[in-house]
Amino acid sequence: MQETFGRKKKILNDPVYGFININDELIFDIIEHPWFQRLRRIKQLGLTHLVYPGALHTRFHHSIGAMHLMQKALEILSSKGHMFSKDERLATLIAILLHDIGHGPYSHSLEKKIVEELSHEELTLLFLERLKRQFGEIFDLAIKIFSGDCSKSFLHQLVSSQLDTDRLDFLKRDSYFTGVAEGVINSDRIITMMEVVSNNLVIEAKGIYSIENFIVARRLMYWQVYLHKTVLSAEQMLLQVIRRAKFLFADGNDLFGTATLKLFMKNRFTKNDFLNNPLLLNSFGTLDDFDVFTAIKEWAKCDDHVLSLLCQSLVKRNLFRTEIKNKPITEEEIEFRKESVISYYDLSPDEVNYFVLSGSAQNSAYDHTHEGINILFKDGQLLDIAEVSDQLTAEVLSKTVKKYFICYPKAPFDTN
Amino acid sequence: MQETFGRKKKILNDPVYGFININDELIFDIIEHPWFQRLRRIKQLGLTHLVYPGALHTRFHHSIGAMHLMQKALEILSSKGHMFSKDERLATLIAILLHDIGHGPYSHSLEKKIVEELSHEELTLLFLERLKRQFGEIFDLAIKIFSGDCSKSFLHQLVSSQLDTDRLDFLKRDSYFTGVAEGVINSDRIITMMEVVSNNLVIEAKGIYSIENFIVARRLMYWQVYLHKTVLSAEQMLLQVIRRAKFLFADGNDLFGTATLKLFMKNRFTKNDFLNNPLLLNSFGTLDDFDVFTAIKEWAKCDDHVLSLLCQSLVKRNLFRTEIKNKPITEEEIEFRKESVISYYDLSPDEVNYFVLSGSAQNSAYDHTHEGINILFKDGQLLDIAEVSDQLTAEVLSKTVKKYFICYPKAPFDTN
Amino acid sequence: MQETFGRKKKILNDPVYGFININDELIFDIIEHPWFQRLRRIKQLGLTHLVYPGALHTRFHHSIGAMHLMQKALEILSSKGHMFSKDERLATLIAILLHDIGHGPYSHSLEKKIVEELSHEELTLLFLERLKRQFGEIFDLAIKIFSGDCSKSFLHQLVSSQLDTDRLDFLKRDSYFTGVAEGVINSDRIITMMEVVSNNLVIEAKGIYSIENFIVARRLMYWQVYLHKTVLSAEQMLLQVIRRAKFLFADGNDLFGTATLKLFMKNRFTKNDFLNNPLLLNSFGTLDDFDVFTAIKEWAKCDDHVLSLLCQSLVKRNLFRTEIKNKPITEEEIEFRKESVISYYDLSPDEVNYFVLSGSAQNSAYDHTHEGINILFKDGQLLDIAEVSDQLTAEVLSKTVKKYFICYPKAPFDTN
Amino acid sequence: MQETFGRKKKILNDPVYGFININDELIFDIIEHPWFQRLRRIKQLGLTHLVYPGALHTRFHHSIGAMHLMQKALEILSSKGHMFSKDERLATLIAILLHDIGHGPYSHSLEKKIVEELSHEELTLLFLERLKRQFGEIFDLAIKIFSGDCSKSFLHQLVSSQLDTDRLDFLKRDSYFTGVAEGVINSDRIITMMEVVSNNLVIEAKGIYSIENFIVARRLMYWQVYLHKTVLSAEQMLLQVIRRAKFLFADGNDLFGTATLKLFMKNRFTKNDFLNNPLLLNSFGTLDDFDVFTAIKEWAKCDDHVLSLLCQSLVKRNLFRTEIKNKPITEEEIEFRKESVISYYDLSPDEVNYFVLSGSAQNSAYDHTHEGINILFKDGQLLDIAEVSDQLTAEVLSKTVKKYFICYPKAPFDTN
Repeated sequence: MQETFGRKKKILNDPVYGFININDELIFDIIEHPWFQRLRRIKQLGLTHLVYPGALHTRFHHSIGAMHLMQKALEILSSKGHMFSKDERLATLIAILLHDIGHGPYSHSLEKKIVEELSHEELTLLFLERLKRQFGEIFDLAIKIFSGDCSKSFLHQLVSSQLDTDRLDFLKRDSYFTGVAEGVINSDRIITMMEVVSNNLVIEAKGIYSIENFIVARRLMYWQVYLHKTVLSAEQMLLQVIRRAKFLFADGNDLFGTATLKLFMKNRFTKNDFLNNPLLLNSFGTLDDFDVFTAIKEWAKCDDHVLSLLCQSLVKRNLFRTEIKNKPITEEEIEFRKESVISYYDLSPDEVNYFVLSGSAQNSAYDHTHEGINILFKDGQLLDIAEVSDQLTAEVLSKTVKKYFICYPKAPFDTN
Repeated sequence: MQETFGRKKKILNDPVYGFININDELIFDIIEHPWFQRLRRIKQLGLTHLVYPGALHTRFHHSIGAMHLMQKALEILSSKGHMFSKDERLATLIAILLHDIGHGPYSHSLEKKIVEELSHEELTLLFLERLKRQFGEIFDLAIKIFSGDCSKSFLHQLVSSQLDTDRLDFLKRDSYFTGVAEGVINSDRIITMMEVVSNNLVIEAKGIYSIENFIVARRLMYWQVYLHKTVLSAEQMLLQVIRRAKFLFADGNDLFGTATLKLFMKNRFTKNDFLNNPLLLNSFGTLDDFDVFTAIKEWAKCDDHVLSLLCQSLVKRNLFRTEIKNKPITEEEIEFRKESVISYYDLSPDEVNYFVLSGSAQNSAYDHTHEGINILFKDGQLLDIAEVSDQLTAEVLSKTVKKYFICYPKAPFDTN
Repeated sequence: MQETFGRKKKILNDPVYGFININDELIFDIIEHPWFQRLRRIKQLGLTHLVYPGALHTRFHHSIGAMHLMQKALEILSSKGHMFSKDERLATLIAILLHDIGHGPYSHSLEKKIVEELSHEELTLLFLERLKRQFGEIFDLAIKIFSGDCSKSFLHQLVSSQLDTDRLDFLKRDSYFTGVAEGVINSDRIITMMEVVSNNLVIEAKGIYSIENFIVARRLMYWQVYLHKTVLSAEQMLLQVIRRAKFLFADGNDLFGTATLKLFMKNRFTKNDFLNNPLLLNSFGTLDDFDVFTAIKEWAKCDDHVLSLLCQSLVKRNLFRTEIKNKPITEEEIEFRKESVISYYDLSPDEVNYFVLSGSAQNSAYDHTHEGINILFKDGQLLDIAEVSDQLTAEVLSKTVKKYFICYPKAPFDTN
Repeated sequence: MQETFGRKKKILNDPVYGFININDELIFDIIEHPWFQRLRRIKQLGLTHLVYPGALHTRFHHSIGAMHLMQKALEILSSKGHMFSKDERLATLIAILLHDIGHGPYSHSLEKKIVEELSHEELTLLFLERLKRQFGEIFDLAIKIFSGDCSKSFLHQLVSSQLDTDRLDFLKRDSYFTGVAEGVINSDRIITMMEVVSNNLVIEAKGIYSIENFIVARRLMYWQVYLHKTVLSAEQMLLQVIRRAKFLFADGNDLFGTATLKLFMKNRFTKNDFLNNPLLLNSFGTLDDFDVFTAIKEWAKCDDHVLSLLCQSLVKRNLFRTEIKNKPITEEEIEFRKESVISYYDLSPDEVNYFVLSGSAQNSAYDHTHEGINILFKDGQLLDIAEVSDQLTAEVLSKTVKKYFICYPKAPFDTN
């Protein structure tokens, strides 16, 4: 629930943490901004709710949750004697609050599919620059912290690193809303164990087991939720829908859609387009899951055989069958599937490429080649978790697990 | 998560209960039906998520949860020696699973606004009759149990009464997803205390305190969540959006919308229309929150001053201010508000009626004039909870609390 | 878990709240004191674990939990602009931390039975005076706050009133360890709604429903846990054990026991005795559940028929049957039970009084004759919760519910 | 709470699972038996509550919880078509319910210290044999299942193996009562994934991540709770107390204690003693934490310098400092510590061996040399978790982590 004390103090009900206090007026104003409110309509986990029906939580809720953890982390570090100014504190809160502002509909599932030339991080930076004009210089600092361009590296690491408050929030939140109990991490304890050495974020030695648990829980969430084979299937279908719709628009067809959706379906905008035409970002700033899925519902009835079949399947949750393998899918298998789908659905060899989909998914539990998680011992020694864990050895942690998948329709579509 | 054992057995992850087992093939098939899948896109609590951001759970999840509790309740009653056939069991599960199938977009908020002539219960019955053709005679029994037209009254009461599994699920679920901890009820204990006397559902005496807690929790949820003043405000605005859009359509304007939404915005269908034209129910069976909110997003940019203002306000969460009073809002106050809104927004006297909204909300904790909650004592005596509770006396329980509200724009719209 | 940062900072694992931080050295030192450590061996709920097996939590855990809530409450009040000095803060923490230090074995169950002339509050004051000598003047202020003898009444009210942090902790904790889900209260929200008006603790109007929930939950815990009929039975038996043992000691028998237990079983000490002989408080300060229950285990094998029967029954959980009535137990019924017990167990008319036990238990949800819970409205008006709640009316709230019980052995003792 | 339906059906409140149903009369009768009731007075985690104050739960609660999980596991296996008779079901429930009946005071901490010649498993078998006389032939089968002497190996494996319901309960329960959130395992999901192949318990492939989580959580609990250095310290001190007391008794001193405690302190009974003298098991069947800790409280005041110092330290939680190392403690270090302790406390070279304590603690996450956890793939293949986990490789899993510790008094005792 949102309650306002004075003009701009708020308490927000969050089932994950109980209450979240918002004490800064500027933070309050950013949350009220229509671009941030848009995140209420972008689900954190795309189509995952087709497998875990509770997973309808949004980037809005996650961003505020991550900011809540940031408040706690900064308090802890401050109580341990690490210094940062009021502005640095506020800018760090802004950076984490807005770290996902550049996400579009269905976030990761459609990354670089709606706006093909820009990643969500690049879009985030465009938004931050624009908000600077409205909210002032503090955004300069926020951008530096977001981009890793500030001397107090730990502030950036709290926003983006292997132990950032982004991950600490989303693992806990995704676990809560999916109901996957094993994904629970002890974010409280991890934050309590945070320390800073030479401007870098590290973890006190007695937090080792919580870190191991965090790494294992993250991996479990990847394979059991984020890369669940039925979720993969739904996402692959969504990708094909967008691909086909873009193809049809390019081919001169007019399909149903909001004006904004059509704008982005018909054009391939570059970063320069965004810089030259400020209204373009305004438009993107209104696009959300509703534009996309409502179009899909309507396209299910359109004339194009391919698009309508794909959309009907998504709407009715008639998802493609997915097979997961440890080795790449062979050309023979792909051909075999294509042939049987062609004969079932009377498709052309071109069209079948929208229905037999293969690819790979990968996850490494931990990447210690970049910046790892450093453990601080009482004698001042700093060691990478991979060196000190007797369970999660370097070899295991550095291993990237890659799985290969092929998706194809289960059986003739039910088109009643 | 959904996992299939054999062909049609499923386990579903539900953060509220852990796991839900679906063992009946027919239940599995009903859940797969596109009409039931549609409930995935109808939020249980309409616009409540604008106040409690976690409240995005759906009628789909709730319906399956209520069915899960029904399975438990029937097991308990069976273990206490109460008899019902396999068909009666299955029909009761169908009745609870489909009790909300007739709901339209934003469920209660738009009840009788999109389809003005039929309540959601009437639409549910239309759906049940149609599903009977597909799934067979068992639906006859399900309809009887749903309608209260069967000799074993307790089966109907488990579907619809003051202690039905519908309420036992939604209180627990709404509490989980809003994070309002006080709304938690002990559905496990209440179900364990269920008994049947003369075909009626009653509660064993040692369950009295759990029943009192249930009544108090329900009331708390009403005032703190369902009738929260900001939720009221959002719902009132949504109502005006639909009213204005219908007015514009009737006036010959063409607005953006899916074909289905337009169909229902342009026509006032009667029950006979639904009976005479089966395709009409098919159309209604595809309508959901997406059709409505995507239209609202697009209407925010339309030419009609009134509609665009209302829609912008909803999309940007620029909600009207709400005042709650214990006495009816006076004509003077309404006039005062109207005048100031007219001058601010340059509205006509007709138009201002879309912006200054008043009405009342009421809730009675418990209605013992109809069928109450009966408590069974060891000596066989049956008494209404209002007679035996020393806290929730008849006088208190029978009291209907009515509150009056007025909503109006906070300040000049921000239309940047 | 207890972790020490620096010399005397601690983090303590509390399953109820996650972590508890102890930042004050003096608080740390008090917790380390053997008198406070003794509370680790005094269960919060006496013999309740015979009915709810998880209820083994202690006065130690509760006292620290209540102090944790006090830290939060003081922070909230400070953030709302209410002033108190560092000393006042520390003294209030001391007062709540030590509010139960005067409890003896099995706390309330044996109140004024082991030390007959002094209540646990009087013993607490004796302890506080003695600790002052060790810890200094700050204890003067703590004693004033504990006793209600300070101008900032709200500090005392946070320690002892209808909404003190004592109750806020024990309801939540007892609910956690018994597993009675309905007893859960939202202490976070209640504390967040605290305010001070004219030096008195009040609750902001939007906290009304949480207060109602708190009152109802408390009442539920009373009847379902604290006054559960089997708990009553065990407590009555424990009282008779102590009464019989004291009788036997007075009669010149020597029974098994620790030296300290014997000291208090053989003597009836007055407050003056405690004041004149400091060692007496030292002795009392070592007495706990272990002294009493180990004696009971050994007494189960003693020669006295009455004592051994009572003790065996407790040890084997062969608890007396309890009947609860709304009217006083009649003399006839008591006589009837006594006669049958006499004949079963071959007891004398004197002895049977240890086995047929009657009395009453009462609970009023809320006592507004003393200091009530005041609700603060936005216009500054202050009203008692009994006046503003439409559910918990004054009439209902002021009603004291009294129940009468009789306990007697179920059947011939199994003495194998 | 315990509620009785009919004569002998019970519902028990368990905060970990909600409710536990006890439907079998025989199970009810065993729970009522004084030997089983004794487990109410033996804490599951010995002195761990000195570090985690909530950890006061008992072998009684754990045994019933493990039986509850067994009921669920047997239901699942039965629903998957695996056959066992009613007697086999009941005997398996008995075996798990009584698997800890042979534990003495402070269970593992004092294993083979009070009764030096028999392990708790041997004592369990003695109890089972004796209970057979009272409860009949079904105990023969229970003993076979307990001992692994039955053809349906999976029944034994459910009682005792790497995935038995014993572990599934204690990890969840210990996590709940200590508040170590990371220890939570998903016992529901693991049980749901159980299968039987060739009479052996296996886990379906989709349960792999839950098994990995289980192994990691178990390891975390070992190092963070069971082998926590302060817990180690308290346990070492307890061992020295018993060693010293036995020495003093052997030396002809008479110390305080219950008759039963003295019996076991003065004698070194063999298995034959128990077989020849049935009363001996009766005596052991009354011994619990109370006998031991009450003696410790009294011994704190005894004449023997060594015993009184050790006991005072335990009672006042003046625990020894513990250092944990990866390499064995050197003789030099031990000597150094001994010398400084000798000079501080004026001890003889013999006596100092009670105060400077060293040893090792070890834990292997998983032992696949004995019987491992087998994973069942859809194609029928069975593989050890160590072969299929890409994270918990055989190398890692088979590694036994051994740590070395030394404990010694922190500073001069405070003996006020």
